Amino acid sequence: MSPRVLAFDVFGTVVDWRSGIARESTAFLAAIGRSDVDGVEFADDWRARYQPAMKSVRDGKRPFVILDVLHREMLDATLMNRGIDPEGIEAAMLEDWTRAWHRLDPWPDAVEGLVRLKANFPIVTLSNGNIALIMEMARRGGLPWDAILGAEVTRTYKPAREAYIATASILDVAPGELCLVAAHHSDLAAARGAGLLTAYVHRPMEHGGAPPPDEGQRQQWDWQSNDLIELAHLLA
Amino acid sequence: MSPRVLAFDVFGTVVDWRSGIARESTAFLAAIGRSDVDGVEFADDWRARYQPAMKSVRDGKRPFVILDVLHREMLDATLMNRGIDPEGIEAAMLEDWTRAWHRLDPWPDAVEGLVRLKANFPIVTLSNGNIALIMEMARRGGLPWDAILGAEVTRTYKPAREAYIATASILDVAPGELCLVAAHHSDLAAARGAGLLTAYVHRPMEHGGAPPPDEGQRQQWDWQSNDLIELAHLLA
Repeated sequence: MSPRVLAFDVFGTVVDWRSGIARESTAFLAAIGRSDVDGVEFADDWRARYQPAMKSVRDGKRPFVILDVLHREMLDATLMNRGIDPEGIEAAMLEDWTRAWHRLDPWPDAVEGLVRLKANFPIVTLSNGNIALIMEMARRGGLPWDAILGAEVTRTYKPAREAYIATASILDVAPGELCLVAAHHSDLAAARGAGLLTAYVHRPMEHGGAPPPDEGQRQQWDWQSNDLIELAHLLA
Repeated sequence: MSPRVLAFDVFGTVVDWRSGIARESTAFLAAIGRSDVDGVEFADDWRARYQPAMKSVRDGKRPFVILDVLHREMLDATLMNRGIDPEGIEAAMLEDWTRAWHRLDPWPDAVEGLVRLKANFPIVTLSNGNIALIMEMARRGGLPWDAILGAEVTRTYKPAREAYIATASILDVAPGELCLVAAHHSDLAAARGAGLLTAYVHRPMEHGGAPPPDEGQRQQWDWQSNDLIELAHLLA
């Protein structure tokens, strides 16, 4: 059992969204005179709106829009939740704040792990992030993707089954020849349900050390690793 | 006037399709006992069916299908044109022959030129080739794309105006911030018509030294170069 292609979840698996969003939000909050708001809590609140926002697209309640658009709407809601009216903030600043998601840092092992994995497998993204977001992040962080796939290409958000099936089809491999690499049991469970191979990466600091919200969906995945360098050894 | 992103035509601009298809076709023709058929003429005939095949999709006469599918149909027609019945050839061999388009070699300057350009600009494909095709070609030849865009992502074939406009939109840049790099005046003319910047690369050996079929569409492009290393100097 060996994959032909590796497809990666990105937010949380390859990059540390929480530290990055907290750091940038702290600066933006200071710029609007709201240093009293905690940047980490702000990041957690913003991210908590992620699944509900995508669900409306997955359920067909609204046409597909890219994640940059959802992130912008989620930012408005996160601000309003703190009594901050986004209408009082310059549009250019809100756009730049939204693009904090383009500027997330890779986990320390990510670049080396991807370089090693890339020597043996095509490595592609299977992220809900849009292409411009993932490309800017990759150039900034040195992530050597062979191709950027995911929601904007398949026009559907994970964990919809079609997101995994369509990605295998685009890559011209069977679902069972494609391996999802992810730090999230929910994502891996949906991938396995669609027939993909599954590789888990343990990212205990994604939520600052707190247990992951999808712990209940944990299974015995095909590979289990503590970082991408270890995964490269397992798959070598 | 400086582009924010460079989008590359691939067949003929970055890779030498004619030598590659001729070399592989010569071997496949020998394998079916038809060494009498000239590989270069076979390659030219196969490629000549490219625009008509895509036109049926562009004109809405058939739903979008990826280039691998069109290449396979064009191979059948090219074989039949020489009195060879494709039904008499193993399906696996016909598929492998079709994938000769995945195994084209870069022009000698291409990898170095792309590496230099990538230091200053995101470099993406804007090719009619499907994602699996362009990705296999890139891994084999060392082409360091930041993202693989083109027909399979926009669901339309160049030179349809939408192919250029939608690619700029995906990249989150204005059409005038995106530069098409191509060896073909027809492609560049359509890109300019859609508002893109244009960079011409002279590839006199694409057709073995014969004048290009779209010579009549030549214009003064924004940049003109003899190879991608020269283009990197011009854009530095």
